[in-house]
Amino acid sequence: MEITPAPQSWQSFYKLMIGSIVPRPIAWVSTLSADGRKNLAPFSFFTAGGANPPHVVFSPMIRTRDGSPKDTLRNIRETGEFVVNIVTESLAEAMNLTAGEYDSSVDEFELAKLTAVPSVTVKPFRVGESPIHYECTLAHLIDLGSEPGAGSVVIGRVTHLHVADELLIGEDKIDIEKLHAIGRLAGSAYTRVNDFFNLERPKV
Amino acid sequence: MEITPAPQSWQSFYKLMIGSIVPRPIAWVSTLSADGRKNLAPFSFFTAGGANPPHVVFSPMIRTRDGSPKDTLRNIRETGEFVVNIVTESLAEAMNLTAGEYDSSVDEFELAKLTAVPSVTVKPFRVGESPIHYECTLAHLIDLGSEPGAGSVVIGRVTHLHVADELLIGEDKIDIEKLHAIGRLAGSAYTRVNDFFNLERPKV
Repeated sequence: MEITPAPQSWQSFYKLMIGSIVPRPIAWVSTLSADGRKNLAPFSFFTAGGANPPHVVFSPMIRTRDGSPKDTLRNIRETGEFVVNIVTESLAEAMNLTAGEYDSSVDEFELAKLTAVPSVTVKPFRVGESPIHYECTLAHLIDLGSEPGAGSVVIGRVTHLHVADELLIGEDKIDIEKLHAIGRLAGSAYTRVNDFFNLERPKV
Repeated sequence: MEITPAPQSWQSFYKLMIGSIVPRPIAWVSTLSADGRKNLAPFSFFTAGGANPPHVVFSPMIRTRDGSPKDTLRNIRETGEFVVNIVTESLAEAMNLTAGEYDSSVDEFELAKLTAVPSVTVKPFRVGESPIHYECTLAHLIDLGSEPGAGSVVIGRVTHLHVADELLIGEDKIDIEKLHAIGRLAGSAYTRVNDFFNLERPKV
């Protein structure tokens, strides 16, 4: 099948993207509104943006329902701060609860019975139940459109990282067997991460 | 463990990032240099950037070895075009072969015995053996530093998408069971994508 974006519905294009750019890590992003309301929501258009200095990148989309930006994006525009909490299998149900498009007055920490833990370098709270948190300040924000389905690329400079001690091997290796990571796929599907193989990069 | 970037070596920070932002999809990026040499290399800091209009995002890092940009980034700066080829399990060995830091005179299509197929909307070739290709033109390029380990965020506007017919269910659903996707982890590790579960998003 050959598809050029223009004549295709963007919803179909979206389905092909989420079905082929897989498996995706999940950024569970906590923010505060300008008037101090807590927000928490998952985003699977998420990756790292280099390590020196360390940056993370995620991309919320404009809502289909009413063409409005998500609370997360509005809060980041207003405050310039956010925390990326890493999602593990035991947190999947709670994470999914926070994926509903609730009114911005809803505190998803309360809704999903999660512990809001103060951060070290930014004002938004961390998810206490998550074992890894990236505290971030907004470095760049690039809007890629203005219609429903348009993405904005949020690039955060990492100001602090917390890793639960029990996940560490030595000083800087995460124990992938203990992490129980999950990856996002299309529709309502996720994958566990437990069927490993290794490929040594060629020496040049 | 609490880490603030400044006093930590960036290499350790990098290891913690690739161990915790998992599983990562792989962009196998083909480009042409200004004088027409083919290049192909994998990048796992990769995601989508919204669907309307459709964008992809990936982030190459400045080389540790000599502080030079990767051929892929140099080529994209010079030509403004690239193709993201999707990597499946049967292509893992070939993809890994193209991950070496070869001299820019090396054609990784030849090296890994891959078929260079002309694209529809851009000049860089597609990987014939890959079942899904995103043809892209450069929309935004944000450099996040200039030292080894610094990332550049490459945002590409998708100009054409090719999906092998046998992977499609209906018009716009990718068959995840047939795709045999793989995800990138830390070190030399990868994960297969075959242990699924489903979570229905809450109705609001």
